[in-house]
Amino acid sequence: MPLSTDVRKRISAIRLFVFDFDGVMTDNSVLVREDGNESVLCNRSDGLGIGMLKDAGAQVVVLSAEENPVVQARCRKLKIECASGHKVKLPVLQQLLKDKGLTASETAYMGNDVNDAQCLKHVGLAIVVADAHDSVKPLAHAITTNPGGKGAVREVVDWYLEAKGLDPYGVTSKA
Amino acid sequence: MPLSTDVRKRISAIRLFVFDFDGVMTDNSVLVREDGNESVLCNRSDGLGIGMLKDAGAQVVVLSAEENPVVQARCRKLKIECASGHKVKLPVLQQLLKDKGLTASETAYMGNDVNDAQCLKHVGLAIVVADAHDSVKPLAHAITTNPGGKGAVREVVDWYLEAKGLDPYGVTSKA
Amino acid sequence: MPLSTDVRKRISAIRLFVFDFDGVMTDNSVLVREDGNESVLCNRSDGLGIGMLKDAGAQVVVLSAEENPVVQARCRKLKIECASGHKVKLPVLQQLLKDKGLTASETAYMGNDVNDAQCLKHVGLAIVVADAHDSVKPLAHAITTNPGGKGAVREVVDWYLEAKGLDPYGVTSKA
Amino acid sequence: MPLSTDVRKRISAIRLFVFDFDGVMTDNSVLVREDGNESVLCNRSDGLGIGMLKDAGAQVVVLSAEENPVVQARCRKLKIECASGHKVKLPVLQQLLKDKGLTASETAYMGNDVNDAQCLKHVGLAIVVADAHDSVKPLAHAITTNPGGKGAVREVVDWYLEAKGLDPYGVTSKA
Repeated sequence: MPLSTDVRKRISAIRLFVFDFDGVMTDNSVLVREDGNESVLCNRSDGLGIGMLKDAGAQVVVLSAEENPVVQARCRKLKIECASGHKVKLPVLQQLLKDKGLTASETAYMGNDVNDAQCLKHVGLAIVVADAHDSVKPLAHAITTNPGGKGAVREVVDWYLEAKGLDPYGVTSKA
Repeated sequence: MPLSTDVRKRISAIRLFVFDFDGVMTDNSVLVREDGNESVLCNRSDGLGIGMLKDAGAQVVVLSAEENPVVQARCRKLKIECASGHKVKLPVLQQLLKDKGLTASETAYMGNDVNDAQCLKHVGLAIVVADAHDSVKPLAHAITTNPGGKGAVREVVDWYLEAKGLDPYGVTSKA
Repeated sequence: MPLSTDVRKRISAIRLFVFDFDGVMTDNSVLVREDGNESVLCNRSDGLGIGMLKDAGAQVVVLSAEENPVVQARCRKLKIECASGHKVKLPVLQQLLKDKGLTASETAYMGNDVNDAQCLKHVGLAIVVADAHDSVKPLAHAITTNPGGKGAVREVVDWYLEAKGLDPYGVTSKA
Repeated sequence: MPLSTDVRKRISAIRLFVFDFDGVMTDNSVLVREDGNESVLCNRSDGLGIGMLKDAGAQVVVLSAEENPVVQARCRKLKIECASGHKVKLPVLQQLLKDKGLTASETAYMGNDVNDAQCLKHVGLAIVVADAHDSVKPLAHAITTNPGGKGAVREVVDWYLEAKGLDPYGVTSKA
């Protein structure tokens, strides 16, 4: 699907990508063990994409309401900043922008549910996953084709690389 | 999908939601480890929904035939009452209503299989998931669009919030 | 879907159900942990069905090529006989029938892949799952609508109960 | 689906199959535990296929960028050679062919993402899974019908067996 002019323009200005965790970097499921230990289903192509995003110079942060340490565990693997356990997210996002000296129009936020609504309304590029809660879809500038945890994050990375004219693995080169 | 007049009326009267566990709060799968330890796949959007349901003043109970402690583990996380290990569920449901001083018409029961049949016949609002066993579908006042473990519980919460005119995260507000 | 006359006749004579494990009682996936420990995805509705099958007086055995102890773990939970680790299955099936004093026409075998071919050819009722390997489908008297691990076993149990006129949970009763 | 003349010719010459791991031998998901331990979803029919491939005399190697030990764990189970943790894969593939005294036309490579592009361009038979990244699909001689981790590897094995006229489990025999 070709990138719309609006999304291309918005994403070209982005210097910080803020991702919700559950339902965005996971498929929103949680595997619960007998002792209550939780695991979540993430995606390797998202991981590869996050790496390309950082290599391209963008900043990446996860901002999650979830208190379970599995959020931090995934962020450690991806070597990205993690702010989790925040039931109310907007003040945390605002402080983050202040600390980094970035404007809202330099920031993308990607979410999937009602507790992402305020952040989606705040940023220059608001993205939701294909299987986001219906109520937040009207708040987004862009909706991914892939559902959360199934390559939705990677899809956003591909938009960014396309807008920047980047092909880090030389897929289109002849050699 | 707009809420039918019948379901809107029935759900407006509900003060207690009783959920079967496997196939309703999970996708009915069970992950079995070499040592027999079991894990189940639950859903974060259901979890967020359960929180909104409690905040709105409704009571929430899980009633399950399953003996494995994974049922209690999930209920602890969601901070809801749990009655598990009951092969015959109706007497437990009846005692629950007696203890809480609630009538059947103030109670919703949500199930997915033949061992839910008696409870579904008993309550004011009987709900089954999209992928429920065919034989119990005729017993339901409402069938969710989502299958178990994939947002079916959240869908019921959304019905309740809509019937009550609630928008706890201010999704539709301008601010 | 109504039961065909042929399958109804064949299943009415069955006294022993032999199930392959992976791809029949699981979705054929295996979750591999860093240390090599394996887990598999089974199905609660299959478990409920196995219980009804035993209550109805049928014998149930799992016959698997897989050596991993996860097969026995699941069989312990379901309280059924387990013969696993057999790369060549037919001699084991033949010995099983001899030990139990049963004929091939009193036996159903349910499989999903090429290593089930010989057993499927041997029994009175050969069943494969919806997502069985294409090459073994012509060997089956019946193909389930559900894929393995997603209620295929339960579907066979429902065929048996229907053929026997049984409704153990009284779903169709008025009370 | 009948094998194309081109793929039949190419696969008949193959003596070494090199498989990417994540997204080829898995569904590209990764289950992350609270402590960061990772598990991946593999497929039993792929495992059965790998066994048939080796029995037919082909060599099998996994070549992965992933550093997590779960790759080696799966290869140990399947008793195949494993080269993992290689961010840049082509030099490793080239050394592998040199060590084994094989040519590129005797080698098949199966991948799913941009970091497989160079290897796909290098070999006699380049295969990608049904759900491969769109950018690498034009690099493949063949695209499987099945997605990664859902029988894509087995599908390639079936192509090989068909091209060689092999039926190791005697599915088509009358006995």
